[in-house]
Amino acid sequence: MKNLRVRTAEILEVQRNNDTTSKLVDLFLIILISLNVVAIILESVPRWEALYSEQFYLFEKLSIIIFTVEYLLRIWSSVELDVHSHPNPLISRLKYMTSLSAIIDLLAILPFYLAFVMPIDLRFLRVIRLLRIFKLTRYSGAISILLSVLREESHSLAAAFFVLFVVLILASSGIYLIEHKVQPEAFGSIPDAMWWAMATLTTVGYGDVTPITPWGKFFGSLITLVGMGMVALPAGILASGFSDQLHRRRTEYAERLSTFLHDGIITREEEQELQSLRYRLGLSEEDTLDLLKSVTRAVAKRYDTCPHCHQPLAKPAICEIDDRSIHRPHLNPGQHNL
Amino acid sequence: MKNLRVRTAEILEVQRNNDTTSKLVDLFLIILISLNVVAIILESVPRWEALYSEQFYLFEKLSIIIFTVEYLLRIWSSVELDVHSHPNPLISRLKYMTSLSAIIDLLAILPFYLAFVMPIDLRFLRVIRLLRIFKLTRYSGAISILLSVLREESHSLAAAFFVLFVVLILASSGIYLIEHKVQPEAFGSIPDAMWWAMATLTTVGYGDVTPITPWGKFFGSLITLVGMGMVALPAGILASGFSDQLHRRRTEYAERLSTFLHDGIITREEEQELQSLRYRLGLSEEDTLDLLKSVTRAVAKRYDTCPHCHQPLAKPAICEIDDRSIHRPHLNPGQHNL
Amino acid sequence: MKNLRVRTAEILEVQRNNDTTSKLVDLFLIILISLNVVAIILESVPRWEALYSEQFYLFEKLSIIIFTVEYLLRIWSSVELDVHSHPNPLISRLKYMTSLSAIIDLLAILPFYLAFVMPIDLRFLRVIRLLRIFKLTRYSGAISILLSVLREESHSLAAAFFVLFVVLILASSGIYLIEHKVQPEAFGSIPDAMWWAMATLTTVGYGDVTPITPWGKFFGSLITLVGMGMVALPAGILASGFSDQLHRRRTEYAERLSTFLHDGIITREEEQELQSLRYRLGLSEEDTLDLLKSVTRAVAKRYDTCPHCHQPLAKPAICEIDDRSIHRPHLNPGQHNL
Amino acid sequence: MKNLRVRTAEILEVQRNNDTTSKLVDLFLIILISLNVVAIILESVPRWEALYSEQFYLFEKLSIIIFTVEYLLRIWSSVELDVHSHPNPLISRLKYMTSLSAIIDLLAILPFYLAFVMPIDLRFLRVIRLLRIFKLTRYSGAISILLSVLREESHSLAAAFFVLFVVLILASSGIYLIEHKVQPEAFGSIPDAMWWAMATLTTVGYGDVTPITPWGKFFGSLITLVGMGMVALPAGILASGFSDQLHRRRTEYAERLSTFLHDGIITREEEQELQSLRYRLGLSEEDTLDLLKSVTRAVAKRYDTCPHCHQPLAKPAICEIDDRSIHRPHLNPGQHNL
Repeated sequence: MKNLRVRTAEILEVQRNNDTTSKLVDLFLIILISLNVVAIILESVPRWEALYSEQFYLFEKLSIIIFTVEYLLRIWSSVELDVHSHPNPLISRLKYMTSLSAIIDLLAILPFYLAFVMPIDLRFLRVIRLLRIFKLTRYSGAISILLSVLREESHSLAAAFFVLFVVLILASSGIYLIEHKVQPEAFGSIPDAMWWAMATLTTVGYGDVTPITPWGKFFGSLITLVGMGMVALPAGILASGFSDQLHRRRTEYAERLSTFLHDGIITREEEQELQSLRYRLGLSEEDTLDLLKSVTRAVAKRYDTCPHCHQPLAKPAICEIDDRSIHRPHLNPGQHNL
Repeated sequence: MKNLRVRTAEILEVQRNNDTTSKLVDLFLIILISLNVVAIILESVPRWEALYSEQFYLFEKLSIIIFTVEYLLRIWSSVELDVHSHPNPLISRLKYMTSLSAIIDLLAILPFYLAFVMPIDLRFLRVIRLLRIFKLTRYSGAISILLSVLREESHSLAAAFFVLFVVLILASSGIYLIEHKVQPEAFGSIPDAMWWAMATLTTVGYGDVTPITPWGKFFGSLITLVGMGMVALPAGILASGFSDQLHRRRTEYAERLSTFLHDGIITREEEQELQSLRYRLGLSEEDTLDLLKSVTRAVAKRYDTCPHCHQPLAKPAICEIDDRSIHRPHLNPGQHNL
Repeated sequence: MKNLRVRTAEILEVQRNNDTTSKLVDLFLIILISLNVVAIILESVPRWEALYSEQFYLFEKLSIIIFTVEYLLRIWSSVELDVHSHPNPLISRLKYMTSLSAIIDLLAILPFYLAFVMPIDLRFLRVIRLLRIFKLTRYSGAISILLSVLREESHSLAAAFFVLFVVLILASSGIYLIEHKVQPEAFGSIPDAMWWAMATLTTVGYGDVTPITPWGKFFGSLITLVGMGMVALPAGILASGFSDQLHRRRTEYAERLSTFLHDGIITREEEQELQSLRYRLGLSEEDTLDLLKSVTRAVAKRYDTCPHCHQPLAKPAICEIDDRSIHRPHLNPGQHNL
Repeated sequence: MKNLRVRTAEILEVQRNNDTTSKLVDLFLIILISLNVVAIILESVPRWEALYSEQFYLFEKLSIIIFTVEYLLRIWSSVELDVHSHPNPLISRLKYMTSLSAIIDLLAILPFYLAFVMPIDLRFLRVIRLLRIFKLTRYSGAISILLSVLREESHSLAAAFFVLFVVLILASSGIYLIEHKVQPEAFGSIPDAMWWAMATLTTVGYGDVTPITPWGKFFGSLITLVGMGMVALPAGILASGFSDQLHRRRTEYAERLSTFLHDGIITREEEQELQSLRYRLGLSEEDTLDLLKSVTRAVAKRYDTCPHCHQPLAKPAICEIDDRSIHRPHLNPGQHNL
């Protein structure tokens, strides 16, 4: 029973190593979630719904069964996960159930069961069911980099959105002042004018509503200009964030590599750890090769000169000193077996 | 009286440490300003104004009273602030009253009183009252990073806007030349054509006015291309600026940290100073932890070899020299009590 | 025969050195491909096709003959290329034929011959023929930098597009929920609503379909805001990628330069190799000059102090020690002929 | 006469130092050019032209006289400029006349004189006259940074535009294939379809022409997605370029500063040279202060330990060794007068 639970946890967790069963289960779930999303979207087309409503319902029922089983198995086996470990299995499971990914799993099945208890608008239900798409985030490694950058830069991004908010209010009240008499249906109040201001500041520019008076056009032109700056702000912040994040992840990898290289040899185990670290940090193979090169060079540099007599130990081509002074120290093995 | 004034200054200033009263006052003012902005916006909707005009006026009066009291208290207690200190309290207060944040505070209440003296268009008054939103900037720490970047890059941004201005004039006069006969109402003069040129160069693209002749479309396509470049310019400049600003703030933090670490110990006071510095520079906890690690390593590196006899003092695992040469110096405590 | 094949390979390959014949053939092919693209585009204009259909067909036939001869010559001479070398010339040629550029070459001529065998829609044939434009990529050196960046950042970009995909589904199902009753022709199903969502999230904003209900406009405003972020994501990722790529290419160049400078002299051959490396890495002349300066300085720095007696060897203006201690070591030429 | 010519050259050149006359002439010319641009733009408005055509013509004549005198004086005094110096004054002047800024000056006045010789369309003449705006570039220092970045990144930008061009052709031929039967007036030929493709790829999105078939909308959505990437490319390239350019300019400044600091003192002349270098490189005061700090620290670091006996010379708080070992070396002034 215990072994079965450990195995279940192993299979359900996203495996980075070569556990074929786990990989197949992952693949099956990814396909099932994707098919669910496609089915819900297609079901919203009246023509398709009329033709295949029965098949859609059948597929929905089948999916709900699988997702429910998956959810129950995850809760049951969650006690084997390190992150949520607790002596009391009940608390351990409650801790797991309040984790983000468990809540997403619950949201994927809950609406179906709730529809039995209370009447939910069918179309609203459809959209709620589409939240199933978030189950996919579990399988995407690169998402974590993106989230790290967004978290790191959250202060700057919040400031940018605050500025956008202030500018939005000024832009919409300005255009309201200028155009509310000429176009009362489009700019009749500040909230109405916000629709135009938002489309302009984000450079979307639908054009369903535009100023028509000369002063309105002049003010509108200024706001398009400000909009260009508004779009540039998050782009600039994120560019800086991605650049910084990449640097940070490389430094982390280089440090681990440097520790492993202290004894001059990278063992099988160390190589596997580096491989999984590379995967976790989302670094490319080319990246890690470059880091290996530079770390090796940095480690080697420490031995350019003997730390005791300060005679060069290598690279005789650069510094042409007489041969004896290079080889002499090596006659004393006790001092120089680097 | 003096104590009361010091306390008032303390409470009104945005507090970073744990002064509960000050924090509550800050929170109250933030909510009041936000409610004011919401109220002014809603008041502009004819339906809402008709229904609740009395309530809106009451809330406005109440807000004005609070903001007036706040403004007067700030001026009264401003003599306690270091920034505006001056032996003569009158000059000290005048110095405070001409500071940007005091002017914003005055602008928030002035229109209300001015409306009694002279007739102001009600709608214009509304927009002026919306400037109250700037009172919020006092409470946002992250805005300072944004402003630093904009100030640092002001030269490059000005150059980018100058280029945009030149291109705008060329684009609008070009399209005027090509299309003024076919669409005299849209491109009848260069200022008229600027509306299209501005919407195109900023990639807003309303589409209310577009060229219709083949040459106009060809010229217009070129301008959309240039517009793409115009949008890229400020994004590129700001990206470089944010990256640079982050680097600069980290260096400042690392330098302070390095100074504090010289004696090997970070005291309580130093920790508090670092904390407030971290807040002021807008660095994340992760950032400062990374910096602590790297600074510690840099400080430690200085002692890799003894500065007197050049024998390695640590890391025997890397450089396997005979044991005596490592330990011998330590027999002489006077020379090596690092 | 062998010599002729080597010469053919030399001429057809894009030459970086001064082989005039090869350059002329390159230029001729670039012009021919460009003229082909222009001709196919113009042929799609009904008026032009009616007038010059015969000339277009003649030019097409001529081009096909030249491209076919080029393709056959490339396959014939491909055995001389190092990349696809194999003892068996047939395998060597098959390896070449499955390379990307050979497939592009085949695609440029295949539709013409296929049109004889089976009926192809004339308009579809035209678009297929336009793929000839990819033959130009062979001649553009800078494209490789762009592809490197895209490959390096493929993980982050994939994550960004996954986020866009999730947001797209949520945005289109949200607007479908809100507006499908009011505008059944535009938001009647989730796939229909995707047209609006896509135009908004990418900030294109056609404006042919826009929400009209207050809640639809509110939701739409939120989506324009998210769209601004969506556009910022790839810009940020690519900015970080280009910055990193540039740094990486410079490091590669600097390392090669450093190796060449070890003996203090850059020979003719080394200079030519550096020149071709510079071209391959897409570095500017200014870049390489800067790198030469910094590498020279780094190499020179190693000799600031004598590696044997630790006395400064240069820069007496900075460190004013007595003259004897500088010059003495040089009396012993065996030790200091750096 | 010679002195007058030197003085004329001094006055006409953009002065960075405190030559009041030169500054006033610069200011006068900047205002005159700006007024010219404003006048030409206003003249294109039929109502204004009808009212003030005489005044406009008068102002034009006056401006032409001043610009002509300025142009002739510049040519006459150009022999005093170092850049175009040549023993033969005629060749020196011809060299100046073919420089970009001299050609811009000529273009500002030539159309006026040409209009006497041959008939030029009045509206075309107006746009040509607007090229006068380029005379302003002479006075903008920050433009040079922008041009440096564009020149540095020209290879990457060219590659990005080549990719855009290829995608444009594929997008317009694809939409032509799908929609030419349904919307023959908008997508009747590939050149016609390019108008939509261009507006979409640059995310301008006028919306005057949009696909209406389901497949057209699907294809169109893909193209909006590609468009988002197309906009991100130049933003990313320019961000990397600006970041690199800033780094490069700082390095140049730091190197000069380092040279000046070798003797430990920055003289008046050196300070002036640094000031003009700062101006030329477009660095902010904050930038240069940071560089001064870091360069000073780097220079100071060289003396942390005595280069002869390797005993620490400073910072006794860090390394607590017995006092004698620090002070002893200083008893020997011949060796340690650093």
